[in-house]
Amino acid sequence: MPETVFEVDVDASPEEQPDPIVNRWHPDVPAAASVEPGDKFRVETLDWTGGQVSNDDSANDIRDMELDPNHHLSGPIEVEGAEPGDLLVVDILDLGPFPDLEWGFTGIFDQENGGGFLTDKFPNARKAIWEFDGVYTHSRHVPDVHFAGLSHPGILGTSPSHELLEEWNERERALIERGPNDKTAVNHETGEDEPPLALPPEPNDVLLGDMDDEAVEEAAEKAARTIPPRENAGNCDIKNLSRGSRVYLPVFVEGGKIVTGDLHFSQGDGEITFCGAIEMPGWLDLQVDVIKNGMEKFGVDHAIFKPGNVEPQFSEFITFEGYSVTEDGEQHYKNANIGMRRACLDAIDYLSNFGYTKEQAYIILSTAPVESRLAGVVDLPNTCVTVSVPQAVFDFDVDPDNLENAGGVDRGTAALPD
Amino acid sequence: MPETVFEVDVDASPEEQPDPIVNRWHPDVPAAASVEPGDKFRVETLDWTGGQVSNDDSANDIRDMELDPNHHLSGPIEVEGAEPGDLLVVDILDLGPFPDLEWGFTGIFDQENGGGFLTDKFPNARKAIWEFDGVYTHSRHVPDVHFAGLSHPGILGTSPSHELLEEWNERERALIERGPNDKTAVNHETGEDEPPLALPPEPNDVLLGDMDDEAVEEAAEKAARTIPPRENAGNCDIKNLSRGSRVYLPVFVEGGKIVTGDLHFSQGDGEITFCGAIEMPGWLDLQVDVIKNGMEKFGVDHAIFKPGNVEPQFSEFITFEGYSVTEDGEQHYKNANIGMRRACLDAIDYLSNFGYTKEQAYIILSTAPVESRLAGVVDLPNTCVTVSVPQAVFDFDVDPDNLENAGGVDRGTAALPD
Amino acid sequence: MPETVFEVDVDASPEEQPDPIVNRWHPDVPAAASVEPGDKFRVETLDWTGGQVSNDDSANDIRDMELDPNHHLSGPIEVEGAEPGDLLVVDILDLGPFPDLEWGFTGIFDQENGGGFLTDKFPNARKAIWEFDGVYTHSRHVPDVHFAGLSHPGILGTSPSHELLEEWNERERALIERGPNDKTAVNHETGEDEPPLALPPEPNDVLLGDMDDEAVEEAAEKAARTIPPRENAGNCDIKNLSRGSRVYLPVFVEGGKIVTGDLHFSQGDGEITFCGAIEMPGWLDLQVDVIKNGMEKFGVDHAIFKPGNVEPQFSEFITFEGYSVTEDGEQHYKNANIGMRRACLDAIDYLSNFGYTKEQAYIILSTAPVESRLAGVVDLPNTCVTVSVPQAVFDFDVDPDNLENAGGVDRGTAALPD
Amino acid sequence: MPETVFEVDVDASPEEQPDPIVNRWHPDVPAAASVEPGDKFRVETLDWTGGQVSNDDSANDIRDMELDPNHHLSGPIEVEGAEPGDLLVVDILDLGPFPDLEWGFTGIFDQENGGGFLTDKFPNARKAIWEFDGVYTHSRHVPDVHFAGLSHPGILGTSPSHELLEEWNERERALIERGPNDKTAVNHETGEDEPPLALPPEPNDVLLGDMDDEAVEEAAEKAARTIPPRENAGNCDIKNLSRGSRVYLPVFVEGGKIVTGDLHFSQGDGEITFCGAIEMPGWLDLQVDVIKNGMEKFGVDHAIFKPGNVEPQFSEFITFEGYSVTEDGEQHYKNANIGMRRACLDAIDYLSNFGYTKEQAYIILSTAPVESRLAGVVDLPNTCVTVSVPQAVFDFDVDPDNLENAGGVDRGTAALPD
Repeated sequence: MPETVFEVDVDASPEEQPDPIVNRWHPDVPAAASVEPGDKFRVETLDWTGGQVSNDDSANDIRDMELDPNHHLSGPIEVEGAEPGDLLVVDILDLGPFPDLEWGFTGIFDQENGGGFLTDKFPNARKAIWEFDGVYTHSRHVPDVHFAGLSHPGILGTSPSHELLEEWNERERALIERGPNDKTAVNHETGEDEPPLALPPEPNDVLLGDMDDEAVEEAAEKAARTIPPRENAGNCDIKNLSRGSRVYLPVFVEGGKIVTGDLHFSQGDGEITFCGAIEMPGWLDLQVDVIKNGMEKFGVDHAIFKPGNVEPQFSEFITFEGYSVTEDGEQHYKNANIGMRRACLDAIDYLSNFGYTKEQAYIILSTAPVESRLAGVVDLPNTCVTVSVPQAVFDFDVDPDNLENAGGVDRGTAALPD
Repeated sequence: MPETVFEVDVDASPEEQPDPIVNRWHPDVPAAASVEPGDKFRVETLDWTGGQVSNDDSANDIRDMELDPNHHLSGPIEVEGAEPGDLLVVDILDLGPFPDLEWGFTGIFDQENGGGFLTDKFPNARKAIWEFDGVYTHSRHVPDVHFAGLSHPGILGTSPSHELLEEWNERERALIERGPNDKTAVNHETGEDEPPLALPPEPNDVLLGDMDDEAVEEAAEKAARTIPPRENAGNCDIKNLSRGSRVYLPVFVEGGKIVTGDLHFSQGDGEITFCGAIEMPGWLDLQVDVIKNGMEKFGVDHAIFKPGNVEPQFSEFITFEGYSVTEDGEQHYKNANIGMRRACLDAIDYLSNFGYTKEQAYIILSTAPVESRLAGVVDLPNTCVTVSVPQAVFDFDVDPDNLENAGGVDRGTAALPD
Repeated sequence: MPETVFEVDVDASPEEQPDPIVNRWHPDVPAAASVEPGDKFRVETLDWTGGQVSNDDSANDIRDMELDPNHHLSGPIEVEGAEPGDLLVVDILDLGPFPDLEWGFTGIFDQENGGGFLTDKFPNARKAIWEFDGVYTHSRHVPDVHFAGLSHPGILGTSPSHELLEEWNERERALIERGPNDKTAVNHETGEDEPPLALPPEPNDVLLGDMDDEAVEEAAEKAARTIPPRENAGNCDIKNLSRGSRVYLPVFVEGGKIVTGDLHFSQGDGEITFCGAIEMPGWLDLQVDVIKNGMEKFGVDHAIFKPGNVEPQFSEFITFEGYSVTEDGEQHYKNANIGMRRACLDAIDYLSNFGYTKEQAYIILSTAPVESRLAGVVDLPNTCVTVSVPQAVFDFDVDPDNLENAGGVDRGTAALPD
Repeated sequence: MPETVFEVDVDASPEEQPDPIVNRWHPDVPAAASVEPGDKFRVETLDWTGGQVSNDDSANDIRDMELDPNHHLSGPIEVEGAEPGDLLVVDILDLGPFPDLEWGFTGIFDQENGGGFLTDKFPNARKAIWEFDGVYTHSRHVPDVHFAGLSHPGILGTSPSHELLEEWNERERALIERGPNDKTAVNHETGEDEPPLALPPEPNDVLLGDMDDEAVEEAAEKAARTIPPRENAGNCDIKNLSRGSRVYLPVFVEGGKIVTGDLHFSQGDGEITFCGAIEMPGWLDLQVDVIKNGMEKFGVDHAIFKPGNVEPQFSEFITFEGYSVTEDGEQHYKNANIGMRRACLDAIDYLSNFGYTKEQAYIILSTAPVESRLAGVVDLPNTCVTVSVPQAVFDFDVDPDNLENAGGVDRGTAALPD
């Protein structure tokens, strides 16, 4: 087992951790640990909410969650010798839950507090608890489903430079100021109650590791929220960034300053319920190396990666397609979100044939290793999106050809907590 | 070999085919053939351009293509007993090129005539010719690449009812009238020279099978263009709709009236160069069945499908990610197209390390079995898209870890025709 | 379509073919065609029996088959410039049945005429006819099973030199003379009615292409039977030698002289019923190249190959294991055949839970893409063999966990013909 | 983490463990732990040698190993309510090395002490140490190779009844008495220095858990060795019996009495060097259930299993074939071992083109996830075996088509210890 360079205590509050939590991106957060190229090391992480969710049957904790202090992350880990322009080569050797905390949660956020991809259809908070059975998971709130986890860190990134941070703040502020372009995918029914377009720096509840209090006060005005993925990878939520993957991360500051967390036991493409993966605290074992001047050598300015080859395999899928017309018949221009939305809604309708509530179906799409693809992006005005559900995640026969045998089972009895 | 119910002659013009071509969606096109549930049958098709492209080294035919008469399709095939509300079960038993026409083409359209996903970066017409070697293909215009085709029909659909057709026309007209919402993914640099938002009915160059001339004249005003995918599946361009796939198609008119064509020897997710697959004329063998009242039974209002299990398999990929910020730093709101664009641009830059021109790299992404996923759709304001390139399509070592061995080969010498 | 260099006529007898059939290995058979390195070409083949089996419901043709004239093969194809010590690089570009003969057959041979792997358990002739539905197949004699074919040539080889032929004859004669070592896997119950140990040259029914009659008479005394695989690959019956595979074949005579045939639409590992694949006449498209002095360069003295990547994929299997103890409790020494036998017998027993007769189950194991592995070869005295049956080849739920739902269906009603 | 029901101490001798070790099969070994149907529990195990091998660069420990006390196993675990005729359903939830012992070993045994599949070619002891990097492994003794482990227990079985034990002893004794049938695969060159045909009960070094000394003395005369797999599964060495697999084990005594151990981080089909997997101590998490009267219900008398779907995936292989003729030209009758031997020898020769010693190549075949198949078992006298090596386990280009670039690297410098 590699040496642990960042430790957490899941029984303590985020403010009282053995190593200090980070919940914003800022270049000046002092390194919590330092490693050399070639080193293998373990990083422990809280779940992204910092422990706000319990293993019980009520969704009140989802409904009432404090969102400002998220995500609760571990780092920065400084790599000796890494300089701006280099690439870090980060191997995700392995990751998992803590031995005595083998459960995770998925939440549907309330429309008034967080929302989600289909929040207009699913406005109320819901929660499902998942138990981990080694490589598999199942949930008392979603019966007759079990699947192997495609576990990954939702967040893995390097720290931005001051210049890059400024750029982030400016471009996101500009979006907020110039207003929405096409937000119909999210909230097409009301037209009024818009979710935020972007999240500007939020000085409340800022945690910046070991930075001293005075510095924090200043930094908090500029430190970027961790919600969106950006140049540094960050909250990319790529389900295939799993065990055995290699990531090439751009370096923007001396040492690179890796920050990571938001571990997912499993997630479908899109992570559609927002708190949509199976969320958990846990550990990840990393190994790092440095490619000097790698950004120029590779000719890329985003992170790139090579997925590992131990992903769960499936040979039978049911595939739903959607395109850029809302279910009310409004035509949008090449809007992939609406395509995704329509495909998801059809999948949810299909799964409810088997006795699931729509909330359960929504959660299955968000957590199981569902494949969502941009099938066609040039056939104006409709972008075609496919959502493919692996049949083998169900313990019963979910194939359309045997649909007539589906009837009569009520899988909603073990309903989602409210 | 199943009986051929629709025949084409690739040496004749689209107007002079053995069975009459269709290039618009309209309910009243007379059935060209009739089949019974359970029947297996063969449909021949022209390439989507109706033979406008030659196997040569000039892209003039791409540059000067007449776009109004596209796509050139085969059908309608009527299924006896199918009624509105039913689902057709269509098995794609097999498909392929004609025995003496074992080549296909990929085009980058000129910005002034068709464009494509990255048309602002690639404004000039280009063409690549691909030869078919049984299950594999290679191109004299893109050396050192070969891969097995994931062949599929770009277009497979049922005919709309009058009501549905009217709905299509109205919603697309409304989009054109209310103007662009967020078109930056396509043409973010100019802001002026916008491509069309949608394609309203175009009465010129209309082909409606055996419909009599007078009726055509009237129908042409309303018949829908075949570019976008819609409720009837249509131009869905789903690369996984390949050999052995089963499609469940909603029925809107008596007999369902299947229309198909636009065969692709291979395509990457997105079909990004627009004429982006490896396009070919050819044949497909189908089998149909009917599920009475299937739309209600299944609870879906789009087509759904089950992909076959003989897709080419790959175990090593290089994955690029993008999100909703243009390369000029403009922040957009959850725009997946921009994520796709950024990931593609990075992939193109990466591949040019190996001696390819950017046009060649663009064509590789568009034709090889590239996987493009909506990785995260809830992390506002950035939607995260990944584009995964299978390493085994290259005859040389394309792995980032051996990049230092890449130098010195100029694969652009066999350049794309101009 | 590549040029056809070897043509057959399925309506004519083997003796009256457009190009003359070969059914023995001999260096002096005149080349039927000549190709150059780099050439693509088509070879047509009869089914291995030369047309002795009909698409009907009687197994009499299997029972009464003449075995001496088998296999009926196409070739030799001479590759210009190939010399002993070279390797031929043979690409299997594609293969398939003839367009108007889309069916094949599987036979269980009578114990008195051919036998099979489990002939003591299945002593009577049986037959199943399979219809081809594009990439898939199904059989009226084995209901509720359908799967994509992993099609391949059972036989593909180069011609032996005189020296090598002599070596084959000597070593096989020596086996016949010194008698059985351990034949219990085949015929352990009787002890008397032993099948042949090997098949020495059989001068009757010899076909040697265009060789003149006098020469044939002499050659027939030495020409080797085509049943066993040998140094030249030959009847290797490797199910993964499918579309898109590349084979490296050792060259023993000038021109290499490729002979091929015995096409299989599908086969399980082992081809256990002997005529155990889904046998068919058809065509294969090949491309050849030459590696000068390749045998020394590669350091190998058998054929090697690279399987294509378009094999049908399966993610759920049921795996049976067997080891070197007969079902009567007799212990053998590291005998893999007995392990294979036991695993097959258990699989057959398992499948008969679902209403199949044991003959049907035997045929499923022999034809579907079953994986049979040498799991452990060092744990004396027992060699462990696993036989893995892909669940998705069944149209119903075959999973052990839902076995209680299996009852009551009699799938044997559509019994195997007799 | 499930409760640990069997604990080991890798720093203590096998005789001084926290829970008592078992190294023979016997029905009367007292249960070390008892679990209920539905329970999840952890079992710790020593490596199979009980700690005789060190992480160093000398193979002396392999050469001098004491073989009589092997394998060192954990159990029996009794399942409440299980009775003879039932099936145990055992889920392998997860398994792995101990956190601070992330290394394993592979040995080539000396011909005089253990031997191996190719012992006549590799008569001297060798050793390779493998380090574990999360899901991956690499070895300082076999450079430029790394791959994800397909980890599994080499041994997992239920305890035999007295009757079954008697049957084992009788049939194995009968083999020893009647002498060899066909042992050429193992020792074909000498004809004299035969390895044992089977291993009868060996009263020395017997460990039977908590059985009292007197009882042990009697039981040791009959307790069966753990080398061969038998009706109870036992030492089946099935590489695919990995994480997420479900095993159905026949029950022969009250409680079933599960015994397990011999953990492998990875193994190729066949485990050919004998100590041929990457051997390690570690833990496995199991869950059990009982199917009453399952043996009759299933109609099987061996263990069956369903492999998990998280096996490492590979898309490019190099496949070697062998058949029943020794490299000296001696023809055997359907001997799969000789086919396996020939394919392995060719693979070893091929890999030595890349600078590996033959010992290193032998070890690669034995440890990497190599696929070995019984391709054809009916083509007398030759059984055809294929050995498929996944290309991606090498860090360099191992493809035959780029073989000319292989030269000049000496990977044998980091030779195997002696």
